[in-house]
Amino acid sequence: MDPKEIAKKTKETAQLYFSTVKDEDKPYHLWRHFDPGLARDMSLYITGQMYARNKIPHTTRQLITVAALTVLSKPEELKLHIHAALNVGCTREEIAEVIFQTSIYGGVPAANTALSALKSVLEEREKE
Amino acid sequence: MDPKEIAKKTKETAQLYFSTVKDEDKPYHLWRHFDPGLARDMSLYITGQMYARNKIPHTTRQLITVAALTVLSKPEELKLHIHAALNVGCTREEIAEVIFQTSIYGGVPAANTALSALKSVLEEREKE
Amino acid sequence: MDPKEIAKKTKETAQLYFSTVKDEDKPYHLWRHFDPGLARDMSLYITGQMYARNKIPHTTRQLITVAALTVLSKPEELKLHIHAALNVGCTREEIAEVIFQTSIYGGVPAANTALSALKSVLEEREKE
Amino acid sequence: MDPKEIAKKTKETAQLYFSTVKDEDKPYHLWRHFDPGLARDMSLYITGQMYARNKIPHTTRQLITVAALTVLSKPEELKLHIHAALNVGCTREEIAEVIFQTSIYGGVPAANTALSALKSVLEEREKE
Amino acid sequence: MDPKEIAKKTKETAQLYFSTVKDEDKPYHLWRHFDPGLARDMSLYITGQMYARNKIPHTTRQLITVAALTVLSKPEELKLHIHAALNVGCTREEIAEVIFQTSIYGGVPAANTALSALKSVLEEREKE
Amino acid sequence: MDPKEIAKKTKETAQLYFSTVKDEDKPYHLWRHFDPGLARDMSLYITGQMYARNKIPHTTRQLITVAALTVLSKPEELKLHIHAALNVGCTREEIAEVIFQTSIYGGVPAANTALSALKSVLEEREKE
Repeated sequence: MDPKEIAKKTKETAQLYFSTVKDEDKPYHLWRHFDPGLARDMSLYITGQMYARNKIPHTTRQLITVAALTVLSKPEELKLHIHAALNVGCTREEIAEVIFQTSIYGGVPAANTALSALKSVLEEREKE
Repeated sequence: MDPKEIAKKTKETAQLYFSTVKDEDKPYHLWRHFDPGLARDMSLYITGQMYARNKIPHTTRQLITVAALTVLSKPEELKLHIHAALNVGCTREEIAEVIFQTSIYGGVPAANTALSALKSVLEEREKE
Repeated sequence: MDPKEIAKKTKETAQLYFSTVKDEDKPYHLWRHFDPGLARDMSLYITGQMYARNKIPHTTRQLITVAALTVLSKPEELKLHIHAALNVGCTREEIAEVIFQTSIYGGVPAANTALSALKSVLEEREKE
Repeated sequence: MDPKEIAKKTKETAQLYFSTVKDEDKPYHLWRHFDPGLARDMSLYITGQMYARNKIPHTTRQLITVAALTVLSKPEELKLHIHAALNVGCTREEIAEVIFQTSIYGGVPAANTALSALKSVLEEREKE
Repeated sequence: MDPKEIAKKTKETAQLYFSTVKDEDKPYHLWRHFDPGLARDMSLYITGQMYARNKIPHTTRQLITVAALTVLSKPEELKLHIHAALNVGCTREEIAEVIFQTSIYGGVPAANTALSALKSVLEEREKE
Repeated sequence: MDPKEIAKKTKETAQLYFSTVKDEDKPYHLWRHFDPGLARDMSLYITGQMYARNKIPHTTRQLITVAALTVLSKPEELKLHIHAALNVGCTREEIAEVIFQTSIYGGVPAANTALSALKSVLEEREKE
């Protein structure tokens, strides 16, 4: 793919997913702090070449991301993708259901951590 | 819910998901070997009270299961749910995409293990 | 088992384990926030059909839970089960020993996180 | 503790736990292949200074080890400690119960892997 | 960076690391089976934009990879990088030392799995 | 090795690695709170018999520790070893590079957590 095209897709997809996330909470912000060139490579690859693919809808992509981050027990990263899931049109019921379902595979404690993250994102968004 | 209703849903959902899986490869078979009563309780809970819920479509449920089992690196369990995903109508392209996507969260080695499991299930099903 | 009997066992076992845990710290509280019906199913299964079994004493059951949550590095969930372990009669020395032992399997950092959780629960209980 | 005393305890505890395990399946065998001096240090520390402690009974120590290795999904190491658990007097029912219980924390797939390991050790021991 | 330059670096680095690994054992082979375009993107990113960086020597890069794959318990992926570590000039003693050291963090069972992988790669290379 | 020699090496290595870490943040402090004798055994083994070995330089040993703790997602323990890495002469660029590299194996979210830990240690040290 043309580098300009990848850069354009990266920007559009980042906007679609993370418009409600503060800049300082975005991983890109942290990567750039240590290595701006690599930060750009990582962003173009992850957002432009992976998230921007159209093999599955963005709603499905975000729900599988919620599932993965739940069983990996990464609540901070999960909060970013709960924002993204809500931003592309997933409902809070669907997100909760994905977390409940993954309790079978990754255990109940990991699901509890994820439900707390979901509760906290929903409360934060209601305030605004 | 009525116990008879749960038992009925358990049977229907198990049939929908795992009709192409050999009995001796099903976890229920293993649980029953050690404790038939508990095996029944686990099966009614997992299949009848969790998988049978209709909050998300079975295709989505199986794709999030693929995501969870990929990052947990459980290839044997994953094979069962790749069967289930194909049985409820997911395509091989969608399943592969879910695995590729989760390489960002759970790492590339876990995704490689999952792609090998997918390749092996597809080859097995083509033979039959 | 009779549904009423399971409900009774669930209540008794929850009381035995978690009487010293605040309601808002219990997973059930969080589950119910998102799905009261499923919260009830999960509670009846986990507490009434798993914890309430009499194949091993409650003290052993809580020590193995401490071991599992230590190597999984889930300190919040661990705090609940350190309460439960102390409530069913385990000593602080036994709980510490279980955590030290599991450092061999799950690594020293996970054990350190668990010892901090133990220290914090003991200090909290001494205050009351 | 006196170095001779530690060496004696290491030998006695290794004999108590692993008399039914083939030499080539013991981690010590593998460590020694790469570094005999460190292999000795590791063995004296793990077996002589940790397993040989008398703060909890050997049966409890082995059941918590089974719990830890189940949620870590390490079936080969688990097989050694299922031998050890049986050798110090745990029953197969108790070992199975520990594995079932930890399915709540570490997920059902990890428990399934552990039950398969238990089944395989029991079959192997019945043959002899 | 210029796309041609990245492609050149990808080829050179892949050759430096994996010349002793059979094609069918390389992840690229598996990715291409499912999605040739994405396989190329992943390869250019991982090998050309990450491995090819010169911030740390290739020997250090491979030893940290051995450490990561040891605690993640991914023996198949580890075998590839043990090849790479030996191919860039790490000694078997250094690789074994890295594995022994990480037993403190990721636990002894994960280190045992890694030492078995190291033993198997060394035996395979001695045969040739 | 002579017990006095191990004690001497333990002290020297602890001083070399952790002179900039507050006593109450050191695991030894926590171990001693629960079991002073075992705390001493663990310290002599981990610091005196493992860290003090001279098979690889201290800089390499700390970078592989950073890699292991990154993929295990243990930020508190990681902070101690980022101090150690800087104390033995690793640069912040090398530490960041190790974390970026392990994002391939353990996933991007684990690397993000580690980069935050690195940022926080660097800021703390700059203040002093």
